Amino acid sequence: MNTCKISDSVIKRLPRYYRFLGELKSQGLNRISSRELSEKMGFTASQIRQDLNCFGGFGHQGYGYNIEFLYSEIGKILGLDRPKNAILIGVGNLGKAVALHINFEAQGYHLAGMFDSKESLVGQIVRGLPVRSISTLDEFCRESRPEVAILCIPKDAAVAIADQLVSLGIKGFWNFSHYDIALKYKDVSVENVHFVDTLMTLSYRLKNTD
Amino acid sequence: MNTCKISDSVIKRLPRYYRFLGELKSQGLNRISSRELSEKMGFTASQIRQDLNCFGGFGHQGYGYNIEFLYSEIGKILGLDRPKNAILIGVGNLGKAVALHINFEAQGYHLAGMFDSKESLVGQIVRGLPVRSISTLDEFCRESRPEVAILCIPKDAAVAIADQLVSLGIKGFWNFSHYDIALKYKDVSVENVHFVDTLMTLSYRLKNTD
Repeated sequence: MNTCKISDSVIKRLPRYYRFLGELKSQGLNRISSRELSEKMGFTASQIRQDLNCFGGFGHQGYGYNIEFLYSEIGKILGLDRPKNAILIGVGNLGKAVALHINFEAQGYHLAGMFDSKESLVGQIVRGLPVRSISTLDEFCRESRPEVAILCIPKDAAVAIADQLVSLGIKGFWNFSHYDIALKYKDVSVENVHFVDTLMTLSYRLKNTD
Repeated sequence: MNTCKISDSVIKRLPRYYRFLGELKSQGLNRISSRELSEKMGFTASQIRQDLNCFGGFGHQGYGYNIEFLYSEIGKILGLDRPKNAILIGVGNLGKAVALHINFEAQGYHLAGMFDSKESLVGQIVRGLPVRSISTLDEFCRESRPEVAILCIPKDAAVAIADQLVSLGIKGFWNFSHYDIALKYKDVSVENVHFVDTLMTLSYRLKNTD
């Protein structure tokens, strides 16, 4: 039924749709036209129709989209209805902020364990979970079979631990380190978070609108 | 001299070039071919040549690119050589991690002040700076004239404070809140950081490689 090729750009836009629809839903709205959605999101209405058509098209002529339905369908397409066990490596300032700030359950994950190599951190409770020693990683992974690792460690540490994580069955990385994992491990899924890139882009924009 | 239209995608790739070249530089390398750079970065060699040609082309046939020169030129293009005063709003877990984790100076910024509305945070020292009461924002901005605001606050709080910041002369936002500032303020530069979007994209990829 689906004849579109789902491009990387469409996939990258889906979370944005999901976020916006979630907000509309929480405002108690029931339906929205592609034109209204377009004004709110800053995509063109035809872009929106095209994107959503890729997944079977959820709109009806003259009615628009049913928000609740579209929200839940995009959630399923994103796999958010299938919770994945995740572990977090590196519980410094960044790791702590990630652990405390992100609503993992709402994004289809369950944060199962947190690890650090610093003995002074081991045993601390963050988000109701104890920080575990990195030396217990093998044992933990064999028992809990996490699929996803969240790397909140510097590049050198990431290089050292990626092999171990992949061999322990990690299939996806949410990667805050600056190690380009995807170049070495072609069979794992990697999403890199490079804060600093957008900060540089902002610098460029400021310079060029002066 | 420059006949390329500098597209948004090129601008978004520049920080990545800058990061990679910085690493090569720190490894003591002097020059690199577009082919080698391509292998390291996962862009095609022709993409790299095309991107860098947009800015005047820094390569020489048979020699490749001078790393130090290219690094410094891209830094200038990005405006990193012109430090911009920035203030950070919201010193919770996320704001603290951003303040402590980011090397602002290396990205062309100077973190001049930090603000929170929580009285219990006011006066705490983070990264050598005192957390200031949000009630002193006007006064501080009139004196220090920051150009950039880093928003580490929830959406509702961001909606309430964006007007004030724009009227105080803020020209760019590094936006961790989920408030779509750019839709309302067309004349400011905004880079949104949506952690959670990449986490959802990862979920999609895991689901579709099973």
